[in-house]
Amino acid sequence: MIFTCNKQDLQDAILIAQKAITGKSTLPILEGILIKAQENTLTLIGSDKDVSIETKLVADIKQPGDIVIDSKIFGEIIRKLPNDKITIETLDKNTVQITCLKSVFNIVYMDANQFPELPMINENQIFSIPQSTLKNMIKGTSFAITQDESRPILQGILFEVNDGHLNLVALDGYRLAIRTELLDTSNSINAVIPGRTLIEVAKILEDSDENVNITFTTNHILFSLENTKVISRLLEGEYIKYNSLLPQEYKLLVNVKRQDLQNGIERASLMSTDSNSNLIKLNIESDTIIITSNSQLGKVREEVAIDLQGESLQIAFNSRYILDILKNMEAEEIVMEFTSSVSPCILKDKESDNCKYLVLPVRLIK
Amino acid sequence: MIFTCNKQDLQDAILIAQKAITGKSTLPILEGILIKAQENTLTLIGSDKDVSIETKLVADIKQPGDIVIDSKIFGEIIRKLPNDKITIETLDKNTVQITCLKSVFNIVYMDANQFPELPMINENQIFSIPQSTLKNMIKGTSFAITQDESRPILQGILFEVNDGHLNLVALDGYRLAIRTELLDTSNSINAVIPGRTLIEVAKILEDSDENVNITFTTNHILFSLENTKVISRLLEGEYIKYNSLLPQEYKLLVNVKRQDLQNGIERASLMSTDSNSNLIKLNIESDTIIITSNSQLGKVREEVAIDLQGESLQIAFNSRYILDILKNMEAEEIVMEFTSSVSPCILKDKESDNCKYLVLPVRLIK
Repeated sequence: MIFTCNKQDLQDAILIAQKAITGKSTLPILEGILIKAQENTLTLIGSDKDVSIETKLVADIKQPGDIVIDSKIFGEIIRKLPNDKITIETLDKNTVQITCLKSVFNIVYMDANQFPELPMINENQIFSIPQSTLKNMIKGTSFAITQDESRPILQGILFEVNDGHLNLVALDGYRLAIRTELLDTSNSINAVIPGRTLIEVAKILEDSDENVNITFTTNHILFSLENTKVISRLLEGEYIKYNSLLPQEYKLLVNVKRQDLQNGIERASLMSTDSNSNLIKLNIESDTIIITSNSQLGKVREEVAIDLQGESLQIAFNSRYILDILKNMEAEEIVMEFTSSVSPCILKDKESDNCKYLVLPVRLIK
Repeated sequence: MIFTCNKQDLQDAILIAQKAITGKSTLPILEGILIKAQENTLTLIGSDKDVSIETKLVADIKQPGDIVIDSKIFGEIIRKLPNDKITIETLDKNTVQITCLKSVFNIVYMDANQFPELPMINENQIFSIPQSTLKNMIKGTSFAITQDESRPILQGILFEVNDGHLNLVALDGYRLAIRTELLDTSNSINAVIPGRTLIEVAKILEDSDENVNITFTTNHILFSLENTKVISRLLEGEYIKYNSLLPQEYKLLVNVKRQDLQNGIERASLMSTDSNSNLIKLNIESDTIIITSNSQLGKVREEVAIDLQGESLQIAFNSRYILDILKNMEAEEIVMEFTSSVSPCILKDKESDNCKYLVLPVRLIK
């Protein structure tokens, strides 16, 4: 194998393929990047047991071939080389030589035949969605996946295609996040994708209107970008029927500026501690929410202006859960729906139906 | 105690006083900031056993007084408050109330009488030096202090005033750093200041031509800025006679572009590991240094253009020590002096005498 390519292109491609390499696999070959050189195209592939990422770049291939190089050392060498042409050539004794101007590295490579094959994906039944939209949907839900390893299905995000809509849903025992966008399709699909995979996919997606194509198979999902493909296995098992968790009605409706509420709760949470479940109390009155918290550290009182429809209410939350939601919403003005001090609270954008969050209150001992 | 002040001024002052609070002290009171309110001036003091930092700001004092507040929680509260006027008032039961717009915090305070007194410093025998100059001198030497707790004197930096010069000197068993500046004085002083203190002082110093005044006493050093004073104890004991470590002559003189050499050594160090003492070899020839390194990871060869006066030489270094020096030098072009493969190497700026570094080679087994 002999090829020459641009340093910056190669560095960018390595950074993408590395996102699949978690070091969690027990197979040493999966700490490497598979490099395929063929027909003026270099293909880099990184894999672990859940996800594979394949990305392509233009190269001047003098002699085709496939090798695997340790991802960490390869990435460090390429990053530190000057911004010029890099030539990579296999020598004898499983050695690969990397040359750039006056720098010459010789490192060992591994046999490409040991690298696991990517799953075959038949790219029909494709959905398309702008990259920036999917990126926001993932960011707006992935914080709510559970950290509890005993409930693996909840470590994933539900992709639900239905009725010309794509819904992304994540939940743990305390909150629920739903993001919705229109999708030009009449198909129906339910698939749960590992949250970790999606967080890496979100890093590869650009803030652009360019589409990402999505293909589902029985066991896998494929995200296709111009030069990059991400293939993830799906999680097995049935997702929770989340619709039944959403209240059908409410008694209080609060309009509030998101940043004001977030600032007030952030300050109040300075006086809440792990030992009291990060407890903050909300006194919802006619035109104000009074937020209070107290612990051995001291006590705090915050006032936030609101517009209330309904009766006043006292309710308590774990500040961490409600802050996660407020930080991941985007609208300036939001709406909160309450029923009682022991019923879930719903948070939505005031102007759009693209997101819906649910958070459970903490029951206060009277 | 009752006073009102600007949020941003108070936040800045807390950040300065906090630099003395390491949490290493066993006295709980030293986790607090002493706040003195008097005559329209607020004085904040943070201390640990080595260093105290006192800083002042303008405040509207309605009722004078002194209290101590936990530094961490006080800093977090002030940082999160809106950018507006903050009022602080002591209530009964050792409670202090912090109010800003619609936010009210009540936290406990500690008794100011328990806070240790600052050492009395008679501010005569003062040296003055621009803040940016002292900041650079500290940054250019502090990396070379030892991490070895069994040699406490070498955890400090020597301040040597002599012959109208200020020298800062740091060394461990492998390298030596000297920075020199002119000083308008005829006095002579030798004092060793804890390195950790000086690293914090460097963070407070600004990149400006404004002077910092320095006063020495038998046991302490005082740095005075416009609104801030830093008092550090001196380390006890005699510093090493570092001049005797410097070679009196050399056989080879190398002129090299600092960044080229640094880049080459950084790349070569990718193939050096802890298990071989980060070993890199330098082959100094007529117009090139060839840098090589090899380990179980692989091998590397780098070429750096130089101008050599003298014979060729092979010499080996721990890449970490020589990189630390190159990164902390400022000149574009530097000079290296060698005598033999087992003698120290001296590094200097080509155009100035303000810095001198020494690094020991690694002796190669032939």
